Amino acid sequence: MSATTPAQHSDQPGRIMSGEMAEQPAVLRRILDEGAPRIREIAERIAARNPRFVLLTARGTSDNAALYAKYLIEVLLGKPCGLTSMSTTTAYGAEQDLTDVLVITVSQSGGSPDLVASTEAAREAGAITLAVTNNPDSPLAAVSEFHIDVLAGPENALPATKTYTAELLALYLFVEGLRGGDGAAAKVLPELAQQILDRKDEVKQLAGRYRFAERMVITSRGYGYPTAKEAALKLMETSYIPALSYSGADLLHGPLAMVDNISPVIAIVTDGKGGQALQPVLERLRGRGADLVVIGPQPEVDRASAGFALPTDGVAEEVQPILEILPLQLLAYEVTIARGQDPDAPRALAKVTETR
Amino acid sequence: MSATTPAQHSDQPGRIMSGEMAEQPAVLRRILDEGAPRIREIAERIAARNPRFVLLTARGTSDNAALYAKYLIEVLLGKPCGLTSMSTTTAYGAEQDLTDVLVITVSQSGGSPDLVASTEAAREAGAITLAVTNNPDSPLAAVSEFHIDVLAGPENALPATKTYTAELLALYLFVEGLRGGDGAAAKVLPELAQQILDRKDEVKQLAGRYRFAERMVITSRGYGYPTAKEAALKLMETSYIPALSYSGADLLHGPLAMVDNISPVIAIVTDGKGGQALQPVLERLRGRGADLVVIGPQPEVDRASAGFALPTDGVAEEVQPILEILPLQLLAYEVTIARGQDPDAPRALAKVTETR
Repeated sequence: MSATTPAQHSDQPGRIMSGEMAEQPAVLRRILDEGAPRIREIAERIAARNPRFVLLTARGTSDNAALYAKYLIEVLLGKPCGLTSMSTTTAYGAEQDLTDVLVITVSQSGGSPDLVASTEAAREAGAITLAVTNNPDSPLAAVSEFHIDVLAGPENALPATKTYTAELLALYLFVEGLRGGDGAAAKVLPELAQQILDRKDEVKQLAGRYRFAERMVITSRGYGYPTAKEAALKLMETSYIPALSYSGADLLHGPLAMVDNISPVIAIVTDGKGGQALQPVLERLRGRGADLVVIGPQPEVDRASAGFALPTDGVAEEVQPILEILPLQLLAYEVTIARGQDPDAPRALAKVTETR
Repeated sequence: MSATTPAQHSDQPGRIMSGEMAEQPAVLRRILDEGAPRIREIAERIAARNPRFVLLTARGTSDNAALYAKYLIEVLLGKPCGLTSMSTTTAYGAEQDLTDVLVITVSQSGGSPDLVASTEAAREAGAITLAVTNNPDSPLAAVSEFHIDVLAGPENALPATKTYTAELLALYLFVEGLRGGDGAAAKVLPELAQQILDRKDEVKQLAGRYRFAERMVITSRGYGYPTAKEAALKLMETSYIPALSYSGADLLHGPLAMVDNISPVIAIVTDGKGGQALQPVLERLRGRGADLVVIGPQPEVDRASAGFALPTDGVAEEVQPILEILPLQLLAYEVTIARGQDPDAPRALAKVTETR
């Protein structure tokens, strides 16, 4: 267990997080320009080994990136895929047969001992191991057979932002490489990301409605679901508002009881099949008079209480999550500032969480 | 999308849920006496087919039962295992190769169209399909190659209770059957379940502290983690208190910022490796002055702010979840009554949720 090492309160609350959010277009461009050839090469080498199943291992923000990869792997590759319950290895010492299994471990720091231990165990159990980290010199990179560097540069704010979008893009390019695609759908992302980040003032206005919120529900479906989870995590770890994330379908299986006109809902409406599958949920929410904020295409925003319109024309559904999270990172930041707290220094949060 | 069909408010709020919770010892006994031989036979037939990978598909309460099975499969069988992201099939039409894959679909009603569709797709993709339901005449049972009936009898309360513990026990016996075990560890459960349910007054007292709670955090690790998720779901769908569940390790990766002495925490401390792995988290919570209620062995309760002591002596860790959830079901019920609401009639909740 690491000691708690929150950043000191500064004269400019949120300066570090704000700076790192702003770097995202440049990081995405760097991955496309400098990282892509190496990612492709690794993908080709792994594809040649023909893994039949994929397991993803991660925690926190990186776990949401792993969930995004799970959708890519199931939909684009048609391979069965699971998220690891890490304690089965680290606490219970489960001995698994991982022949033909690709184990992908995603971690910003590459330093958490349980991730290192579980990746080592997977390699011993016969798995092909791939680490996706922001640190090529990390212990996790060292114990994995393959390593992808997400090239985000040092991340100093406690809430992860640029490493999340960097992980998403690296994982997208990797999965594209596995199926022999060229990842061309990602080329538009740096410029669109910049356009979204330039609309900070719109998000600031949106943030006003959550200043006194006691809870929030965030929902999506399909490719947007990891975005819902990551947005909830970001809001909780910066503003401390309890933010509950559900896939639209799960929301109808119970927690909807909690949603009424005093529980605001944010829906991430991906432009494509995920957004279509979410329509009945949106209808139900509107029928209940929920305060519904939509992050998605303009027509969806127009039918909601408020929202942030995303550029989705000509943007493939599977890369939209890399843009969807941006206004939500800004929202977490702005809500936290509005509540008089410092987004750089959440209580109790250490940058490298050393769970064992 | 089904219409909302909440039960009518009755003169005795919670009468139906209360009655069904009380049936649990008898249901567990019925599964052991009448269901076990058939479950064992199915397990033997499936074991002979030697599946290499297991996928679990479910929603809501049954999804928490599926997560319990995931731990059993990874720890006791050493097989890689994943939870299905259902929309990859139902919304995206992903075409997967599921040769050598066992797909287990868990559903109380066996009636949700998306579960039926995704199970049919899995069977066409080459999977061995097993449905675990409370209705042998359901569409889900019909489209699956194998079916296990959890024998819980009709469930009429909207919050599922007896079907959850029945699903856990049926899944435990099934996994035991896959590895040629006899499931003897389950024999003590009906009597211990009765002893726990007889201590309703203790739970009622515990419920007092949550009457005015605006949010709760529920945590555990290993086998107890599905219990944390199910307890959170139960509390939310009956009392509408936002209850956030995290594995202990994930809690340290961010959401801990939200926990302080005004956010009560419930920890499920399984007696065994899961509880041991949770110790650093409990220490951290005590260090932060959290209001910590423990569901677990007496010594763990003694170190917390309050709790409910579980009989764990001689109870194998892997079957403890079948007992752990009982005081938490009672708690959801009592908190809801204390808040002047009716646990039988949550807002907006339909018994069979027809997500597509």
